[in-house]
Amino acid sequence: MEALRERIVREGRGIGGGVLKVDSFLNHQIDVAFVEEMGQALADRFKGACVTKILTVESSGIPIACAAAKALGYLPVVFAKKAAPNTMIEGVYSTDVKSFTKETVSTIRVSRQFLGSEDRVLIIDDFLAYGESAMGLVRLAKNAGAHVCGIGVAVEKKFQGGGDRLREAGYSVESLAVIRSISDDNIEFEDVLVTKEGEKE
Amino acid sequence: MEALRERIVREGRGIGGGVLKVDSFLNHQIDVAFVEEMGQALADRFKGACVTKILTVESSGIPIACAAAKALGYLPVVFAKKAAPNTMIEGVYSTDVKSFTKETVSTIRVSRQFLGSEDRVLIIDDFLAYGESAMGLVRLAKNAGAHVCGIGVAVEKKFQGGGDRLREAGYSVESLAVIRSISDDNIEFEDVLVTKEGEKE
Repeated sequence: MEALRERIVREGRGIGGGVLKVDSFLNHQIDVAFVEEMGQALADRFKGACVTKILTVESSGIPIACAAAKALGYLPVVFAKKAAPNTMIEGVYSTDVKSFTKETVSTIRVSRQFLGSEDRVLIIDDFLAYGESAMGLVRLAKNAGAHVCGIGVAVEKKFQGGGDRLREAGYSVESLAVIRSISDDNIEFEDVLVTKEGEKE
Repeated sequence: MEALRERIVREGRGIGGGVLKVDSFLNHQIDVAFVEEMGQALADRFKGACVTKILTVESSGIPIACAAAKALGYLPVVFAKKAAPNTMIEGVYSTDVKSFTKETVSTIRVSRQFLGSEDRVLIIDDFLAYGESAMGLVRLAKNAGAHVCGIGVAVEKKFQGGGDRLREAGYSVESLAVIRSISDDNIEFEDVLVTKEGEKE
């Protein structure tokens, strides 16, 4: 998705450790119109997959998950929770997920009420890095007996290997922008190099 | 908003301690079409307020904040963060917020980059109970020198007093459903009583 690559180059910033900061439109401030475009683009890639439910994890995956759900005909979205509020009183599926960005391990949970063997699940998230979060969501879906139709993300940081691990495990992974490397001067994408000056090679 | 009151009665459940569980369409599973209706309804109530930015807090406020932002002409949404990821390297506004539901105190943060004195902020959230979260967002906006145009929420639990405290402090508070009391058998709304059998008195 060219508009996303250009926006990453214009507004994103590598802050070391392979972390890309795109707080201005995706992770902290949200450009709702642009997120809708991204959701539509992900929906287009999975429109033949007979998806019945979108699964994501709080928080920054939620807007793009809702946008993809709308573009696929207003499917229900379920977001896995990282905390265990006392409103989750029924049985849950849970699994542990490591965050390389935050250097923590957290437990993510989905109520059994909202995920079952009848579901054909599309996992949507903003970023795919080491794949820990996506693999956690796959485990939750599998625990529920649901079918995983695929994984769709806005930004895949290919150099961190999560996307390839999921593909090797047989999952259909679609990413709107695939980053091969991040340095101070440029962000190299899988199919095109876009420099800070906007030149493409 | 009658559709919301009916849905709360049909799908919501008081689980003690004044907690209302509406996980089936708002807090865990998201009905995107219905959330868009709610966002539109909130936008209608603030359409004359010259809002320039929507402010919410992760996680379950995000979908309705995005929906209201869209209905107000695709305004930017900023969601305050509860954790401090290492991607938030710039200066932040922060304040402590008590959660009566989770019995915790958490620090919420907004990057100074995305909130400033030029902003006319509409605070949007899913629930307004004791008002701690909304008051925390008001403090963040005030710290940034922004003008607070008002506070719009889906569900106000009036018996917990937050909405009235905010109104007494001079803020315009709009709620799509105002709950006066929650018991095992019925949920009493401010303007109409809807029982589990759907009768209205």
